[in-house]
Amino acid sequence: MAQRIGTQTILLPQGVAIIGSAAVGTPKEAQGPLGQEFTYCFPDATAGESTWEKAESTLHKEAINRALQDAAIPPEQVQLLLAGDLLNQCIGTTFGIRDLQIPFAGMYGACSTMALTLAMGAILTECGVVQTTLASTSSHFCSAEKQFRMPLEYGGQRPPTAQWTASAAGAAVLAAQGEGPRIRAAIFGKIMDYGIKDANNMGAAMAPAACDTIAAFLRDTKTSPQDYDMILTGDLGSVGSTLLVELLQKEHGIDIRTIHADCGLMLYDPQTQDVHAGGSGCGCSGSVVCSYILRRLREKSLRRVLFVGTGALLSGVSSLQGESVPGIAHGVLLTSEEDDS
Amino acid sequence: MAQRIGTQTILLPQGVAIIGSAAVGTPKEAQGPLGQEFTYCFPDATAGESTWEKAESTLHKEAINRALQDAAIPPEQVQLLLAGDLLNQCIGTTFGIRDLQIPFAGMYGACSTMALTLAMGAILTECGVVQTTLASTSSHFCSAEKQFRMPLEYGGQRPPTAQWTASAAGAAVLAAQGEGPRIRAAIFGKIMDYGIKDANNMGAAMAPAACDTIAAFLRDTKTSPQDYDMILTGDLGSVGSTLLVELLQKEHGIDIRTIHADCGLMLYDPQTQDVHAGGSGCGCSGSVVCSYILRRLREKSLRRVLFVGTGALLSGVSSLQGESVPGIAHGVLLTSEEDDS
Repeated sequence: MAQRIGTQTILLPQGVAIIGSAAVGTPKEAQGPLGQEFTYCFPDATAGESTWEKAESTLHKEAINRALQDAAIPPEQVQLLLAGDLLNQCIGTTFGIRDLQIPFAGMYGACSTMALTLAMGAILTECGVVQTTLASTSSHFCSAEKQFRMPLEYGGQRPPTAQWTASAAGAAVLAAQGEGPRIRAAIFGKIMDYGIKDANNMGAAMAPAACDTIAAFLRDTKTSPQDYDMILTGDLGSVGSTLLVELLQKEHGIDIRTIHADCGLMLYDPQTQDVHAGGSGCGCSGSVVCSYILRRLREKSLRRVLFVGTGALLSGVSSLQGESVPGIAHGVLLTSEEDDS
Repeated sequence: MAQRIGTQTILLPQGVAIIGSAAVGTPKEAQGPLGQEFTYCFPDATAGESTWEKAESTLHKEAINRALQDAAIPPEQVQLLLAGDLLNQCIGTTFGIRDLQIPFAGMYGACSTMALTLAMGAILTECGVVQTTLASTSSHFCSAEKQFRMPLEYGGQRPPTAQWTASAAGAAVLAAQGEGPRIRAAIFGKIMDYGIKDANNMGAAMAPAACDTIAAFLRDTKTSPQDYDMILTGDLGSVGSTLLVELLQKEHGIDIRTIHADCGLMLYDPQTQDVHAGGSGCGCSGSVVCSYILRRLREKSLRRVLFVGTGALLSGVSSLQGESVPGIAHGVLLTSEEDDS
């Protein structure tokens, strides 16, 4: 049974198993440092589709199908699908999953979606509400640029603080029992808004939310950074990561420098891949967690990872209307199968 | 403890109490048949804001604040907020709830959002994951027309199958214990897509999803329409309601004619309010359920209502790219406090 402790954290004493997962990308992701970790990368960023939005849906669908293969179960056995993405009305998800015929609860957390769906899926599975759940998300550089900033054809310059939206998808199959890494706790974050209005500086907008959620989790669980092998944020990039480390130190006296990692700084090579402040997008942390991180937990080279996905809850319209960018961060504690600490 | 039965339905044997609720609208809703049922209607569709999106956020915030007042609890006591809306990246919600500082899990179900958030909130509350939860949603005619169809200034003609997006918001406070109507079961729907491509005929696009979810719920619970005082759909409007009744009869042999009602046909007067096929938008079923329906359940003039919210999972982009409109429907069984059947 899930058990709420402190102000926000929900413990999952039995632990939910991640019995299968997959990460899908495009050539850009294949060429990055984690290229070999991906389950599959399409040979072309269109994924064979006629529009960027349809390409994203195809990435999403492929990730789900390959996660189901990895778990060796058919779609009919999945009792609930929790998924979402960045596109208006989450069409990357909807059209990707349309044919699956799995009961579907849509979620919206911008780039925090992988953490949000893993958190909700794990809680519902731990409580026995469902036996087998799918959590998934996707993003695409071209659909995101077109929607949030400029059509690619415009050839706009991206400032140094900008991040590169991953053309990638991640999916994980959760089950009450089975082999695989475990989800042992979850936390839903609060909206934090420090007044950042630069839609090309998502890292700065999301760092306060990551800070708040990490501090709440450590306080609620009475643990310190030393109790984890890694505190992994979802795509704060270089600007946001620096701010997070500073904020945690100044506001809470917490030093995460030696164990902090960020999906946005892992997915691409900043020297050669022209991604400016790093990767971003739902598919960034989605694919990094569902490939590299879960594999390390399976192999036990990582044993306890606090994964905190971060999301910037803006829209193109809110930015044009002069609004600041609210941030949010949701988290899950991922452990190797036999970790009982 | 929540208990899954049949293929999709989740029973909540203890039952979750709806200890407070509120519906907020604008003059159009105040002038409708349910005007007196609303908690509050702003004297002007702008709600005092400079943009339609900000007006929607203000409706959303007002509904939450008034629901908290109705429940007589402060925001700090709410452990989780489940909410969403129709706007790109759900900004109607985000900017409405930004200052509340309640842990927030964003959900996306288009016009099914009230049912989706009530369902998820009730399950988490029944399981003891949280003690007190807020479920809320909003929509606004002007922000929706601008986003999905045409800016109002264009003066486009609306076809007879079109529905009128409610400028309204609904919010409900759920608790493990307390006085008020109960949520006793929940169901997450599957995406149904019959190939409807007319973005001005949402009722037809959503009717198959409502049919599938209602049939699944009755099959899973081994009940028939006669076991309910009302089977209430969320904004199918006149076109979709007619199709739903036909589909349930033809595909499942289920006759709901005598007990079917639709929020989209209740909120406005079709004779005098120029709404064509009826009301729609997240705020339509959100406000009808959080005012009229919950009041009747409190007064016991209704005792068992199966509320099935329907959503059309399109975007402006998906329609322009020639895609059909996937529908989804989520449901909750609402009963009066002492109904134990």
